[in-house]
Amino acid sequence: MAQNIYDTPGFFAGYSQLARSVHGLDGAPEWPALQAMLPDLRGLRVLDLGCGFGWFCRWASEHGAADVLGVDVSARMLAKAEAMTAAEAAIHYQRAGFETLTLAEAGFDFAYSSLALHYLDDLAGLLAKLHRALVPGGKLVFSVEHPIYMAPTKPAWVIDAAGRKTWPVDGYAIEGRRTTDWLADGVIKYHRTIGTWLRLLRLHGFTLLDLDEWAPSDAQLAAMPALAEERERPMLLLIAVQRGGA
Amino acid sequence: MAQNIYDTPGFFAGYSQLARSVHGLDGAPEWPALQAMLPDLRGLRVLDLGCGFGWFCRWASEHGAADVLGVDVSARMLAKAEAMTAAEAAIHYQRAGFETLTLAEAGFDFAYSSLALHYLDDLAGLLAKLHRALVPGGKLVFSVEHPIYMAPTKPAWVIDAAGRKTWPVDGYAIEGRRTTDWLADGVIKYHRTIGTWLRLLRLHGFTLLDLDEWAPSDAQLAAMPALAEERERPMLLLIAVQRGGA
Repeated sequence: MAQNIYDTPGFFAGYSQLARSVHGLDGAPEWPALQAMLPDLRGLRVLDLGCGFGWFCRWASEHGAADVLGVDVSARMLAKAEAMTAAEAAIHYQRAGFETLTLAEAGFDFAYSSLALHYLDDLAGLLAKLHRALVPGGKLVFSVEHPIYMAPTKPAWVIDAAGRKTWPVDGYAIEGRRTTDWLADGVIKYHRTIGTWLRLLRLHGFTLLDLDEWAPSDAQLAAMPALAEERERPMLLLIAVQRGGA
Repeated sequence: MAQNIYDTPGFFAGYSQLARSVHGLDGAPEWPALQAMLPDLRGLRVLDLGCGFGWFCRWASEHGAADVLGVDVSARMLAKAEAMTAAEAAIHYQRAGFETLTLAEAGFDFAYSSLALHYLDDLAGLLAKLHRALVPGGKLVFSVEHPIYMAPTKPAWVIDAAGRKTWPVDGYAIEGRRTTDWLADGVIKYHRTIGTWLRLLRLHGFTLLDLDEWAPSDAQLAAMPALAEERERPMLLLIAVQRGGA
């Protein structure tokens, strides 16, 4: 199993306090944009890769999904997800790393993943697995950290002499491992360019439906002025694809 | 007609000395990547938008294109293109701005554009025009400045205290006009995110075939060490699409 930083006490405590952990989907400013990419979930068999506390699993279930499987590597997160999920809901949680996960062939109509796939070294392996697990025409909607956000040697704002805030991009074409300190020291992520994301998806039989380099709307900015920096450089990349041709 | 900076003496003199102007396609390090996106041109009716000195028009003709139309807004560039083109070649040059250009319906099997479309404000209008001008299944392959390169208020390298070279990204989500001094003062370009490029192409009936955030290969880097900075931040975005479904 790859790195499981999520279960270390420091990370878990920090993660538990994030707005998106406390408030769920509505605590994530990109949720409206991600939601706009979703298919109608009524009657669908849904897979959530990196389900964390299970917020999306429950949302999917409440919006008519026939069955939901939430997968996560973190035992602590899954325990909390279970505790927040009604026993009668058609939601199952499974502890597994994406590398070792096995999925039923054509067992899902829709797959979702929020901010998890950039932790994965063997993305190609997972995409091959997902292609088998989805029915033809089945959609995959996911968010990852944007490569502009992830590429730099020092991913932190720089204030120049004129007081302007800029994001210091370097190493953009140099893909692979990035180690950062976020909630815990030494969190390992894998940087890929947008070109590589699209190429890997295409190579594994997925057709692009939409790609959004998320930035806040005017209404979001008015409500949360701190989001302004998300217009200066994108932090999140949202992608919708489907298995097979459009 | 939009800005035609190309015919001003200072710009034209500078442009004429660029490696890609002197040496043609082989003077452009992204050419091998762009070439890899091209269809077999034999027998095709080819359109080149922003043909400059006509290097690609002649290459297409030499590689079997049945007929080539090169369009440019610059009278001086077209005069030089004409002078370098054999009278018997099936190549025609036309002076026109992209906004006022008229093209025969289904008159082309393939369209190409190198580093021209980011000068265009009304990209949607041109894409609608191109959709009509291409046959179903006809490809469009083009390069533009990468939005990472184009977004910043100050598009210039910054050397930090540790001597590291970074590219100061700001304003990424704030699309629209950028004014830079390149060969001449006050050159106007239009910044669009990758998300917007892809969305506009899709809205106008084009399907993505490939997207490359160009960076030099190891062999190119060994031959031209100065290209190393192109790995730090992408300067060029190469896109291949086709009219209609894949």
